[in-house]
Amino acid sequence: MTEFMNRDFLLTTQTAKKIYHEYAAKMPIIDYHCHVSAREIWEDKKFSSITELWLSGDHYKWRLMRSAGIDEYYVTGAASDFERFERFASVLPRAIGNPMYHWCHLELKTYFGYEGLLNAETAAYVYELCRQRLKDDDMSVRSIIERSCVEFIGTTDDPVDSLEYHKLIAREGRLGATVAPSFRPDKALNIEKAGWVEYIRNLSNVSGVCIRDFDSLKQALRVRMEYFANAGCRASDHGLDYISYAQASNAELNDIVSRVLDGERATAEDAAKLKTALLVFCAEEYVKLDWVMQIHFNCLRNPNTAMLDALGVDTGFDCIGPHDSTASLSALLDRMWRTKAMPRLILYSLDPTDNAFIDSLIGAFQGGGVPCRIQHGSAWWFNDHKIGMRNHMESLASMSLLGDFIGMLTDSRSFLSYTRHEYFRRILCQLIGEWVEGGEYPSDERALCDIVQNICYYNAKRFFKL
Amino acid sequence: MTEFMNRDFLLTTQTAKKIYHEYAAKMPIIDYHCHVSAREIWEDKKFSSITELWLSGDHYKWRLMRSAGIDEYYVTGAASDFERFERFASVLPRAIGNPMYHWCHLELKTYFGYEGLLNAETAAYVYELCRQRLKDDDMSVRSIIERSCVEFIGTTDDPVDSLEYHKLIAREGRLGATVAPSFRPDKALNIEKAGWVEYIRNLSNVSGVCIRDFDSLKQALRVRMEYFANAGCRASDHGLDYISYAQASNAELNDIVSRVLDGERATAEDAAKLKTALLVFCAEEYVKLDWVMQIHFNCLRNPNTAMLDALGVDTGFDCIGPHDSTASLSALLDRMWRTKAMPRLILYSLDPTDNAFIDSLIGAFQGGGVPCRIQHGSAWWFNDHKIGMRNHMESLASMSLLGDFIGMLTDSRSFLSYTRHEYFRRILCQLIGEWVEGGEYPSDERALCDIVQNICYYNAKRFFKL
Amino acid sequence: MTEFMNRDFLLTTQTAKKIYHEYAAKMPIIDYHCHVSAREIWEDKKFSSITELWLSGDHYKWRLMRSAGIDEYYVTGAASDFERFERFASVLPRAIGNPMYHWCHLELKTYFGYEGLLNAETAAYVYELCRQRLKDDDMSVRSIIERSCVEFIGTTDDPVDSLEYHKLIAREGRLGATVAPSFRPDKALNIEKAGWVEYIRNLSNVSGVCIRDFDSLKQALRVRMEYFANAGCRASDHGLDYISYAQASNAELNDIVSRVLDGERATAEDAAKLKTALLVFCAEEYVKLDWVMQIHFNCLRNPNTAMLDALGVDTGFDCIGPHDSTASLSALLDRMWRTKAMPRLILYSLDPTDNAFIDSLIGAFQGGGVPCRIQHGSAWWFNDHKIGMRNHMESLASMSLLGDFIGMLTDSRSFLSYTRHEYFRRILCQLIGEWVEGGEYPSDERALCDIVQNICYYNAKRFFKL
Repeated sequence: MTEFMNRDFLLTTQTAKKIYHEYAAKMPIIDYHCHVSAREIWEDKKFSSITELWLSGDHYKWRLMRSAGIDEYYVTGAASDFERFERFASVLPRAIGNPMYHWCHLELKTYFGYEGLLNAETAAYVYELCRQRLKDDDMSVRSIIERSCVEFIGTTDDPVDSLEYHKLIAREGRLGATVAPSFRPDKALNIEKAGWVEYIRNLSNVSGVCIRDFDSLKQALRVRMEYFANAGCRASDHGLDYISYAQASNAELNDIVSRVLDGERATAEDAAKLKTALLVFCAEEYVKLDWVMQIHFNCLRNPNTAMLDALGVDTGFDCIGPHDSTASLSALLDRMWRTKAMPRLILYSLDPTDNAFIDSLIGAFQGGGVPCRIQHGSAWWFNDHKIGMRNHMESLASMSLLGDFIGMLTDSRSFLSYTRHEYFRRILCQLIGEWVEGGEYPSDERALCDIVQNICYYNAKRFFKL
Repeated sequence: MTEFMNRDFLLTTQTAKKIYHEYAAKMPIIDYHCHVSAREIWEDKKFSSITELWLSGDHYKWRLMRSAGIDEYYVTGAASDFERFERFASVLPRAIGNPMYHWCHLELKTYFGYEGLLNAETAAYVYELCRQRLKDDDMSVRSIIERSCVEFIGTTDDPVDSLEYHKLIAREGRLGATVAPSFRPDKALNIEKAGWVEYIRNLSNVSGVCIRDFDSLKQALRVRMEYFANAGCRASDHGLDYISYAQASNAELNDIVSRVLDGERATAEDAAKLKTALLVFCAEEYVKLDWVMQIHFNCLRNPNTAMLDALGVDTGFDCIGPHDSTASLSALLDRMWRTKAMPRLILYSLDPTDNAFIDSLIGAFQGGGVPCRIQHGSAWWFNDHKIGMRNHMESLASMSLLGDFIGMLTDSRSFLSYTRHEYFRRILCQLIGEWVEGGEYPSDERALCDIVQNICYYNAKRFFKL
Repeated sequence: MTEFMNRDFLLTTQTAKKIYHEYAAKMPIIDYHCHVSAREIWEDKKFSSITELWLSGDHYKWRLMRSAGIDEYYVTGAASDFERFERFASVLPRAIGNPMYHWCHLELKTYFGYEGLLNAETAAYVYELCRQRLKDDDMSVRSIIERSCVEFIGTTDDPVDSLEYHKLIAREGRLGATVAPSFRPDKALNIEKAGWVEYIRNLSNVSGVCIRDFDSLKQALRVRMEYFANAGCRASDHGLDYISYAQASNAELNDIVSRVLDGERATAEDAAKLKTALLVFCAEEYVKLDWVMQIHFNCLRNPNTAMLDALGVDTGFDCIGPHDSTASLSALLDRMWRTKAMPRLILYSLDPTDNAFIDSLIGAFQGGGVPCRIQHGSAWWFNDHKIGMRNHMESLASMSLLGDFIGMLTDSRSFLSYTRHEYFRRILCQLIGEWVEGGEYPSDERALCDIVQNICYYNAKRFFKL
């Protein structure tokens, strides 16, 4: 029996232990997609309590508490910091088999030196231990980043963002990691959603381009892409509920944009046409800028509308949104390829039943000098757990080329989440170890070292051209 | 090598063996959803042969025989009891990896003391052994229930049912288990199916409410719900081919019901509207009655219409019916939540590819004091096997809160199926044992004891308020 | 640790090793579905290099090279044989977890006696070793077939094919294996695709039936079926992008065929109607001829249209094409059953998420004297790997009758692919070994021997009536 979360956590074979400790664990972290705040990095923020770190914005933890039946008062309500933490701690032991159980204990161990369990009995002790520890200098945001061997941080930013903190960090040049913005123009694409007209007005102001139609909308985005590029951006991100594909002429697109700016409501068809055209336009621009394009999809946002009204978006009420993208995703990739606008691209579906489809589809659009130019992004959000990551990697290995996979990202708002790279690396090494010890791959240390170091670090470094 | 189905069947780790034998195996059974006959319980029925027990109504076994190419004469036809059993026995060894192989041998061992194998050679011996054994007093229905430590039996009953046997059993008060009806108003909802008008006439008579429109239909159901509540009912069940969602005004619904009662055929849209409205109405009533609501869906009924004509429904010709319920199921839950009509709810999809979707969707509708108020029901029917149950529980654990899962039910017509609780408990303990021995959960006996006892017994007891 | 691909490759238990070496490995091969050339068999072709064998037509390998970013010049372009092989060899080590890694090493070991690894360093050595070895007499096509213990080869042939090489091989009667054609009338069904009118003209000529409408189209196919039957055919194959179902009267069908022959374009509805009618017609004829019917579906062909224009079909750009066939596939089977036109049938979906649906659906159409008359065909194409085969067999075992499964086929264009039967047999024996050693199936040597020999050989022999 392996002791709980000891040195060999998740590693059961000699090979897995060896390649994890000797190669994987030593690699720096490239966190190419996350949601941390550049401002908090610039200001080198410190935290008052583990509640602030864990429960002020982490919708994973809120969901777990709600699942346990905990009243919203203790989740996002007015309860005290300690009360909220204690309730969370009391639920945790029931989360057997949940990645949250591992993430929490990994973070307590790595950043707070606490090796025990978190539960109702230990909550007070752990709370106080964390409160004291958080006063230490090495618990500031910058210290955490540097202690975690993070080399690159790709934040997620709106085209209208000034990126002032990214610029300040870069100008100062003292942080051990590069902090680069990523261009996420979702609000410009979501013509069917409330607030689009206001957003476009804002984009007009910020870009200095008066947006009246499709052409000027593209021009405004182009201006902001240049601005982002100057601030060190090398990636974009698109979050789509699902992938739609509908062709339209430029005249039609101009008409759609101007009609909606004039106060008409966009139909579903209007939205599909504009999104298709903007995605293809963006892809073309990203190729010119040599950026990586990311597309996240099959997400059902805000199914609980009463809680949306009460708490707003991103509060733990989204879920997996299965949608058949056979025709639309293949048409989109085909269009990009035909128009020579195929950037380095990462596809992430929130629906794990898409794994096999994606792994086979990307194989029809590879080639041209870039190893796995189309990547099937790491198991994401609801799939970011042992089973999800194993299934993703086994499918990717079976149908594509695991050795060229760019690996893990945190997708997190928290600076303690770098331990998720450790979690991923352990699962990767365990999987490889099983193959090697089962006679499915040779016990060739050089080859294994290459594979592990590449997936943990070098592939991402090359893919993002860092 | 573990001997076939010995004491440690399905249990390979020390932890699994310990928690199964010390905790899981000792828990009473709450069989909150099944299809046994209250009349057979009341009459304390005895059986003449293993064929009567196994092959008079078990469509799982019929399917297996048909899959093997056995002629219908031996399946549901006029062959003798022994011939039918012998044919079944001759197929069984080929059912390697099928839960039927385990269920049969578990039942022979537990109830007949037969520890050998069942196959063509042993069929005659086993048949005779069972024939003798069935004469014993402790092989009556009531004896089987009590020997199996069953504490609660939730049958499935039509709103027009008199529940006379439930009442007789309760009045007598001698059975060790509570036998409660569950309210299953499928026939009232299926306005598009043949026989609906006759059914509604029957419901009118039984309820004493003259059903002419939607309002009076609701009133009749309300009358029968009260009747069921008085007979001890605390749960309902809805079997839907798939989940549809369509809103309609009350006037429109009244019009639909009266039109169809007047002889018009219901369109697909009529049916979707009525079902949506009735499901929401039922949910509201169940909240008032403090009942649990169950919804079963994604089932393709009677695809083989020639065999439907020949043998009728529920004869082993249904199958999994994949259907995209992203929009409809989320809209239904949203409507229930908004109208404060969210009962304690169990969702069961027959399509295992829905697992991740359901496990993430329920997380958007939890909270308010009840641990996992929305449950993802145990792997069901075609998924009621080792792989199906493991996948269900691993997904549930990864995205929700396994510790609050209400666990197993037999869904069976047979009194020998209580062994399926044993089967489930072994699989659960094996899964937990793997986590503990792999260092993924602490080897903390108190926490493990709580989790195992809760999932096997206490969670269901609390959920159904027994 | 098991050494890489040693004698016990993929076999970790004593039971698995025993049943593999003593039973599975000794069975002859029935390769009932493949794409090898009867002409190459007749001519007893020899190969000049491993590049000709591996890279002249294997789109799996081309995809892997493209995934690695290799320029098309080295994939299907003008690069020299050695350059192409060297590039492929340099990619292979990164294909950890990919069946290609195993297939290549199994083929090098089995046919070339090379026990080492293939990578950039060994490429030149291996290339030369193969070049020398290929000169040997026992490396001709016929020698490979006979050394591989192949007893039956089912090729895939167009209805207009003369089958001259099949006839020559049969007349000569010297080859150890039977080489039978399979009837694959896809081109006759694809009324919506370019080239259909020309194809029908060709079919008219070859069959001697002037095709003007649906009736004469059926007549022409009937003539060619008889021709195929006389050449030893006992199976057909249908490759469909997805299953559609639409009923139409005979008059309507005649009209559709004559309209399109007159130059009109077929609508999607026309195509669905004609395909449905022709599939049912074919099924009726196959029943009369006592042929096996195969249906392959859920395949997305040529999503990359620019590469289709450049390289043509079947060059490695197809992928899995998820499509909801709940209604259409069940309706098709129902129609066959009702019209007493249910042949022995094998269903293969390219989408692995269809596994559970198919395994439950076939159970509604079994019976009538043939063990598993409807088979869920072996994991295919993108799923032809360890995970894919395990998932397929675990699902089949759980819901159907694994003991009656007809097992593996290569589906390959290469004469070295017979090692895939070895690969499948090892995975099968490992799975069974796990069940036995875990106490889930008795360690009953006779029963295990029967199961293994049947799945590897006898079931297919009986199913195809060889």
